[in-house]
Amino acid sequence: MDAVTCTAPVNIAVIKYWGKRDEALILPINSSLSATLSQEQLCAKTTVAVSGQFTRDRMWLNGKEESLENPRYQNVLREIRRRARKRKIAGEGKGTSLSDALSWHVHICSVNNFPTAAGLASSAAGFSCLVYSLAKLFRIEGDISEIARQGSGSACRSLYGGFVSWNMGEKDDGTDSVAEQLVTENHWPELQILILVVSDQKKHIGSSAGMGVSVKTSELLRYRAEHIVPRRMKEIETAIQNKDFQTFAKITMQDSNQLHASCLDTYPPIIYLNDTSKQIMHLVHKYNDFCGEIKVAYTFDAGPNACLYLLEEDVAGVLAMVNHCFPPIEQNGDQYIRGLQVEELPIQKDLKESLGFTPLSPGALKYIIHTKVGAGPQVLPSTECLLDENGLPKDAHS
Amino acid sequence: MDAVTCTAPVNIAVIKYWGKRDEALILPINSSLSATLSQEQLCAKTTVAVSGQFTRDRMWLNGKEESLENPRYQNVLREIRRRARKRKIAGEGKGTSLSDALSWHVHICSVNNFPTAAGLASSAAGFSCLVYSLAKLFRIEGDISEIARQGSGSACRSLYGGFVSWNMGEKDDGTDSVAEQLVTENHWPELQILILVVSDQKKHIGSSAGMGVSVKTSELLRYRAEHIVPRRMKEIETAIQNKDFQTFAKITMQDSNQLHASCLDTYPPIIYLNDTSKQIMHLVHKYNDFCGEIKVAYTFDAGPNACLYLLEEDVAGVLAMVNHCFPPIEQNGDQYIRGLQVEELPIQKDLKESLGFTPLSPGALKYIIHTKVGAGPQVLPSTECLLDENGLPKDAHS
Repeated sequence: MDAVTCTAPVNIAVIKYWGKRDEALILPINSSLSATLSQEQLCAKTTVAVSGQFTRDRMWLNGKEESLENPRYQNVLREIRRRARKRKIAGEGKGTSLSDALSWHVHICSVNNFPTAAGLASSAAGFSCLVYSLAKLFRIEGDISEIARQGSGSACRSLYGGFVSWNMGEKDDGTDSVAEQLVTENHWPELQILILVVSDQKKHIGSSAGMGVSVKTSELLRYRAEHIVPRRMKEIETAIQNKDFQTFAKITMQDSNQLHASCLDTYPPIIYLNDTSKQIMHLVHKYNDFCGEIKVAYTFDAGPNACLYLLEEDVAGVLAMVNHCFPPIEQNGDQYIRGLQVEELPIQKDLKESLGFTPLSPGALKYIIHTKVGAGPQVLPSTECLLDENGLPKDAHS
Repeated sequence: MDAVTCTAPVNIAVIKYWGKRDEALILPINSSLSATLSQEQLCAKTTVAVSGQFTRDRMWLNGKEESLENPRYQNVLREIRRRARKRKIAGEGKGTSLSDALSWHVHICSVNNFPTAAGLASSAAGFSCLVYSLAKLFRIEGDISEIARQGSGSACRSLYGGFVSWNMGEKDDGTDSVAEQLVTENHWPELQILILVVSDQKKHIGSSAGMGVSVKTSELLRYRAEHIVPRRMKEIETAIQNKDFQTFAKITMQDSNQLHASCLDTYPPIIYLNDTSKQIMHLVHKYNDFCGEIKVAYTFDAGPNACLYLLEEDVAGVLAMVNHCFPPIEQNGDQYIRGLQVEELPIQKDLKESLGFTPLSPGALKYIIHTKVGAGPQVLPSTECLLDENGLPKDAHS
């Protein structure tokens, strides 16, 4: 059995991907840009293995066997094997086990180091990790973001650390619709992230189904993709290169709001933000007004959770406000604020008065994750392998 | 003392007005269209009086004296007097008290037959009633919607019954930005309206301030006004003329959603819909899906209240669903469903199952108003005068 184990990060877009121009190849109607989050707090970990003993392709996700029939998995496996075969034909695979590996079945075992129930976009990390691991196993070189994209669009952005753009491309075959690193994780070390995990009853429409309806019915989405995003991409790239937080933060909020505006303009409308999400938005604007400049920016994906971008020096102050407005609920041993450590402060008295906000009852937020911008996927030593010598999960509940 | 007393209706737009191209003249960036609601359920009632005894212009709103300094009142009074003076110069006013009236001060007394706390757009009815009454008092002829528009934009649409369009016009002086009746209140008698008054803590930004920020910051609003509304106006006018409920209802929902999408695209974002509003939207789509065609349409203005358009034959069924999902709270003598009478039915069993909706705790809705399309402003007999012989309110709390 040949096996490779890797981890891959979550990414949070500041210019949002919403809408495909090609459903099969997952080609977007606009370019997008995201920060890669540190894998200390959030990552997917995947082992891929091949063996002549395996009788079929199998996969276990978070301890549970899942079907590989989903076309997204089939596309990824087919593309990986096609690229490996190309290398073999070119002679590069000679004398290695690649010839064998190509005829063998694959076993995949993947776990997240965060609860999937949190509603954090885990498919980007998962597909990125799967493709990265398979590429290592089959010794594929060159751009693999095109393969990850065919698993889950935004997965291509999780293949690099720092800030990453996904260029929409122009070609029909998608070969120019690839991810590209804008700056590494060391470029803007002061930038940190707070993820406010919002309590929510509602089952939301998935982003893939949602964007399909939006593309069909929202004229505002089409206008956004064609006329607004291209300019915003340039502006935010410059802002990130210059570490210009004011511009970065404003565009981030505007683009999140425009994504959700496009969702509301969809017929029937799609609504991901709930009253708690709206209160977070309101508080962020109030806090920035109070400070006289933008200190913190929110962004929301296809759910009610808020992701806040802010500089390290402002984390304690913002957390004090969040703690005041959204008091923690009794946890059974779990911490309310998880991840990077920061001094716990009470809310500033004059800020509290300026907000005029009646704290919600405990439980509006489930918990908070404090993290920063991080690196791309990593290869782990074989001791971290998730599969045993028979290619079965070592711990069905790991 | 010369006095005139009139009533004027509320109107609910199906193609929304959002954004001015001229703040002073209140000229909109797009045309809009509304239904005028029956005054049986909702109306403003206003007495205007002139007398040589009055020492200054005064106004009482819902029993409380208010300042007339607001430029909107000043604009209306100035325009009315200018138009009256023009008639006098033209000789039409000769031998009447118009010469006197023009030099006298005016007293205004206005009441609504519905609680202002309900958050129903009362300024349209109020300004429409004020302008209509003043026009009768000063015997002004010709189009007065231009004057009402300068009090409150959408007030111009309350000057007619049935369905009324407000044509945005092109001229800089606003003389072609006037209201026009599309069909009378007798054209589509089957059409009825349910207003779901939603409980809400939040103080929302007023529509005038809100649309000012939207015009400055939302590119989606600009696109909507220029490229989407003109087509929708034509389509919905045809649908109303043909009593084509399917088309009418779909455009109504789409345009409401697009207004709120534009608000969300504003920076900072404006959010009028709360979780209850969203649940109403969701239920309406679920109900229509269940029925296999559109039976009911929602529309929302600058607040969380829903206005539902539906045909008379579907009112009992929809009310049964609303009653099931939003149980009434104990009222102190007041009815939960007010206005037109309709048979109370339990929710259909298979609809209930199909919705899969857990009823909210009582009180999410304050109450429901059941009404229909109605007539324009009416002149009342002098016995209905709200002012006594000294020009003071007969009942400070009427």
